[in-house]
Amino acid sequence: MPLNRREFNYGLALSLGLLPFHRFPTQKQLRINAQRLMSHITALAEFGKNPQGGVSRVAYSDADKQGRDYVLGLLKAARLNVKIDAAGNLIGSRNGSDNNLKPLLIGSHVDSVPEGGNYDGVVGSLGAIEVAQTLAENNVTLRHPLEVVIFQNEEGGLIGSRAMDGELTEKELDLVSRSGKTIRDGINFIGGDTTKLSQVRRNKGDIGGYVELHIEQGGTLEAEKINIGVVEGIVGINWWDVTIEGFANHAGTTAMNNRQDALLAAAKFIEGVNRVVTSVPGRQVGTVGRITALPGAPNVIPGKVVLSLELRDLDAAKIKLLYDRIYNEAQEIAKTSKTKFDFKEINVNIPAPTDPRIRAIISDAARELGLSTKLMPSGAGHDAQDMARLGPVGMIFVPSVGGISHSPKELSLPNDIANGANVLLHTLLKLDT
Amino acid sequence: MPLNRREFNYGLALSLGLLPFHRFPTQKQLRINAQRLMSHITALAEFGKNPQGGVSRVAYSDADKQGRDYVLGLLKAARLNVKIDAAGNLIGSRNGSDNNLKPLLIGSHVDSVPEGGNYDGVVGSLGAIEVAQTLAENNVTLRHPLEVVIFQNEEGGLIGSRAMDGELTEKELDLVSRSGKTIRDGINFIGGDTTKLSQVRRNKGDIGGYVELHIEQGGTLEAEKINIGVVEGIVGINWWDVTIEGFANHAGTTAMNNRQDALLAAAKFIEGVNRVVTSVPGRQVGTVGRITALPGAPNVIPGKVVLSLELRDLDAAKIKLLYDRIYNEAQEIAKTSKTKFDFKEINVNIPAPTDPRIRAIISDAARELGLSTKLMPSGAGHDAQDMARLGPVGMIFVPSVGGISHSPKELSLPNDIANGANVLLHTLLKLDT
Repeated sequence: MPLNRREFNYGLALSLGLLPFHRFPTQKQLRINAQRLMSHITALAEFGKNPQGGVSRVAYSDADKQGRDYVLGLLKAARLNVKIDAAGNLIGSRNGSDNNLKPLLIGSHVDSVPEGGNYDGVVGSLGAIEVAQTLAENNVTLRHPLEVVIFQNEEGGLIGSRAMDGELTEKELDLVSRSGKTIRDGINFIGGDTTKLSQVRRNKGDIGGYVELHIEQGGTLEAEKINIGVVEGIVGINWWDVTIEGFANHAGTTAMNNRQDALLAAAKFIEGVNRVVTSVPGRQVGTVGRITALPGAPNVIPGKVVLSLELRDLDAAKIKLLYDRIYNEAQEIAKTSKTKFDFKEINVNIPAPTDPRIRAIISDAARELGLSTKLMPSGAGHDAQDMARLGPVGMIFVPSVGGISHSPKELSLPNDIANGANVLLHTLLKLDT
Repeated sequence: MPLNRREFNYGLALSLGLLPFHRFPTQKQLRINAQRLMSHITALAEFGKNPQGGVSRVAYSDADKQGRDYVLGLLKAARLNVKIDAAGNLIGSRNGSDNNLKPLLIGSHVDSVPEGGNYDGVVGSLGAIEVAQTLAENNVTLRHPLEVVIFQNEEGGLIGSRAMDGELTEKELDLVSRSGKTIRDGINFIGGDTTKLSQVRRNKGDIGGYVELHIEQGGTLEAEKINIGVVEGIVGINWWDVTIEGFANHAGTTAMNNRQDALLAAAKFIEGVNRVVTSVPGRQVGTVGRITALPGAPNVIPGKVVLSLELRDLDAAKIKLLYDRIYNEAQEIAKTSKTKFDFKEINVNIPAPTDPRIRAIISDAARELGLSTKLMPSGAGHDAQDMARLGPVGMIFVPSVGGISHSPKELSLPNDIANGANVLLHTLLKLDT
């Protein structure tokens, strides 16, 4: 045959009348329409577009609502039955041939951080819709019911997926989100109904599986020239606020040997965190991202510092080990600097391993598409970690140029995005059998 | 004589009718009235009093104005001719026996930092008034004209003394002070007249001398059990803002070896500043008092840090040497951390040495009073540094308990305060001869 079937889109050709008769590819030959997917990504980037590039499409903003309306249209075009659930998640569903089977879910999110990029969440969301549309165009009916889920407010605390697994609390609904609205007002603003949240709640075993395509947001795949990251799990994240008490005093009259400088102690601590985290092999990370020194004047020795400490790893025991070492370092620093350290645990997300069977399926699907793979942790949190409470999950990563994310400079290349969507398509097909 | 004349206040005794006939002590026997001075200090502490102790009597506040009204009354009670000059300084003057001589000035300030203490500026201000009152009560007329000057807004940038030596710029008048008022509005609020500032300006050689009593604001005198600090000079103060540019990235997905963490670089810098400043002998100090890390989220690697660097020493060349070493350390840190350091000079106060003759007079006066002395720099800025542009200056320090200043915990003991005021009295008498 003169045509390279891998490159040929049957659905498109058919709709354009290019084929003399109705001929569908085999399931193995199915490919998503990369050009269409990229045009959708480009179109969505208009909602909340920033002058300096990227988008600010924070959940519950006008831009978020408008972007979701656009995505709703795409779900409909993919011949899905569309609804907004009570939590504000967009859900496009389609029956399977055996509706006694539990549904297979694919999806991601389309909200962004402030001054975020055009790919985080978007690739997985529009990739999932593209997969559904490809199946529809090629008249492929899965055995399982299919749901494409666009979770709301991922960036502000996985709100949509946490409503689905029942983790979202009533109290949280009153917190003010980045949009300025409370989460409650935000959910109702985007078409949810917070009086009916119990309706969206699902239980362990309710889903047959969830697979999420996402950009890596790190630089490993690009650096190692790997096409596809097969996610081993989503790391646990522990966050403490550390308060260092010294003594504020006059920067001119207090001799160097007579100071209790909380910022100098903090500096030693920050170095210590880096030293401890890098002292053992592995892919754990540790970050001090926020710091406040009081009173905060150039001519006053800081008497108090509050800083954040965040540790992430796939293994909760390793996080504990690192924390213990850091805590001990802090006590040593306290002694020599005449300061006092206090650690307050703010948040703990336990590690969420992916399902070994789905990992294997993703690897197989990639290999059959001629793509290289690497097993890797997800250092970032994802809706998949909440879906893992309901059933087996898998995640597919595609390379991020320069490892940059949460930035207008965020970029994944069209070819990599198409690869990811095709792996998602074939992972879904294999999961279905 | 049964009476210990050192402890006996002739003026008071006379006014109470305790003395059978009018008998004045010799000048050597003159002593200030310590009890009265302490009662004035206690009374002034009511204006701007904080619940947790100390005062918030920031320049141009209502509390400042009310405190100044009280001080105005004390100046009058000390039989001085009182005026508020166009810059808002309170000046109490008295003729000398030879009005061709240049005036001798004594004084300090009564404004405070927010949540300051009851002694900074107050001891020198009310001490100077007490000296003037002691002279009046004992019918001592100096050869030189005498001026007791209560400078306004010392804590907000030596505004009153800088108006007097012509350093205050028109542009500065529009800056907003801690009171919320512009300096211009503030000066007019407290009774000055900013349209007539040129009237307060004095020139080099216009004053015969200026002596300021002040609390040490450091812990040296107390630790070494010394009564009186004889100030060698007011240190030079150089302040830079240092900007460190790294790259903000996701704290979960960016491997440790792939980071350009501006806060980690800042931590190494802060440690470096401390190491360099303490690596050479001397009483120089170096402080990082202010730090901002951006974007400032626990889950984002800081991409940018701005911090203050302040160096102080009596010797401008030493400040330069330390700065050069710190700058070089920064370049090394930049290399290894893949960041960029930028230094911006914000403010330079050149060192202001005191007059060697006045230093010697202060030491003599203290010795004759049976008090121990120590030559020392003033690590803090004072109005004296501006008066040094107009004539010879001297400064007398008394101990600060615990070295604490700019704090409700600021404390100097009554006996030390009385010693300081008596040294001021006898320094003035010696300067006059």
